[in-house]
Amino acid sequence: MIDKPRVEVCFTPNQYPLHIEDFQVVVVIDVLRATSAICTAFDYGVKKIIPVSTLDEAIDYKEKGYYVAAERKGKIVSGFDFGNSPLSYMNDDLKDETLVLTTTNGTKAINVAKSVEHLVIGALINLDALSKYLLKLNKNVLLLGSGWQNKFCLEDTICAGAITDQLLNSRKFISLNDSSVAAKYLYLSAKDNYFGYLKASSHRKRLKKLNLNSDIKYCLTPNQTNVVPIRENNYLIASPS
Amino acid sequence: MIDKPRVEVCFTPNQYPLHIEDFQVVVVIDVLRATSAICTAFDYGVKKIIPVSTLDEAIDYKEKGYYVAAERKGKIVSGFDFGNSPLSYMNDDLKDETLVLTTTNGTKAINVAKSVEHLVIGALINLDALSKYLLKLNKNVLLLGSGWQNKFCLEDTICAGAITDQLLNSRKFISLNDSSVAAKYLYLSAKDNYFGYLKASSHRKRLKKLNLNSDIKYCLTPNQTNVVPIRENNYLIASPS
Repeated sequence: MIDKPRVEVCFTPNQYPLHIEDFQVVVVIDVLRATSAICTAFDYGVKKIIPVSTLDEAIDYKEKGYYVAAERKGKIVSGFDFGNSPLSYMNDDLKDETLVLTTTNGTKAINVAKSVEHLVIGALINLDALSKYLLKLNKNVLLLGSGWQNKFCLEDTICAGAITDQLLNSRKFISLNDSSVAAKYLYLSAKDNYFGYLKASSHRKRLKKLNLNSDIKYCLTPNQTNVVPIRENNYLIASPS
Repeated sequence: MIDKPRVEVCFTPNQYPLHIEDFQVVVVIDVLRATSAICTAFDYGVKKIIPVSTLDEAIDYKEKGYYVAAERKGKIVSGFDFGNSPLSYMNDDLKDETLVLTTTNGTKAINVAKSVEHLVIGALINLDALSKYLLKLNKNVLLLGSGWQNKFCLEDTICAGAITDQLLNSRKFISLNDSSVAAKYLYLSAKDNYFGYLKASSHRKRLKKLNLNSDIKYCLTPNQTNVVPIRENNYLIASPS
């Protein structure tokens, strides 16, 4: 049992230093909506995504002529080409292009995990493909929720619980932490009706106010793409399948 | 709706600064076992408990002639009178006495919340009495789990979920954060069988190894006392009922 790799859940980026010891793989999860948007962009042919933490960096890239997506508090930042909506990537405009991306929570979580060996992007929309990828890697996996300004987020935790469930069911992984147990329990009670289950979630309410219900429905529907984005150097690419 | 007080959950002491704004009441929860032990000690007649964070402070008090309880990693620290076991307080030895207490996680959480207006001690064993007390106070309540070395703990979260459920059911409180939603969901799926539900929890496993199953059963049985410990100056007393 001891030789099986572990899967654990870390709810928020600021808890990352308490968890990271001994993990070779970090899966960054921001279901609503950064990591769902990233998966969608690759699915529609984007070649490379450069995640940056600050608007300053984003502006620098914009001035150099890059396509830049910038979201803060659910909205496209004025002056930028794209925001955080997966639906806006469902076209050929960015095919084979490089995109620079900064979001309120998701890209910060990506950058928190910058020194890990394998950084992978997870969402409900790439759930099965992601789990297969992690099973193949066969190393200790930390599932990192992006949270909301470092506070616990229900939808990221449910996604982490879904991945945990798949890895544990394979009997090729073990789990030791209470956060994983909780994530799995929450997933099991949510899985038949994500949309209803998350009705009370603060982030869904926030996005609903911004008229983003179609985004939410898309992001909460599992397995719409087989893309598994991974980090290579300082940017993200779709893992070769 | 806006004038109703709020109830929110903070999973671990290190997340406390992100949550505390606007809360007048903090309930410290360490089901296994510090806050269960505190409630039990008052139930059996202890007059006053002085919580301290470090063993150094505990030793100072011991040298001054106080009864001192000191627990680290589930065990009584060598040279001290008591540890963290609620069962050890079920006698008249400490009736009307003052007890000094330091534990791995629980007393640290108490001290993290030291500047809040009302500090209250919560556990499953005083669940109903505690909820009644909070309803009467009618102020914003933050439920603070003690965690395990600042990591998420399932049993504390379930207890927080139970309190959240009672306060929300009264319709006199509202809740806005995802952590509260998650705690409530976890409580609802655990409530018919805490002991079985927590089988997978890391802390239960830790205590089971130390042969503390009778402690665990006691701590996971709701409503065994009506005591509600509260802070007064720098120590804890049982709230006058």
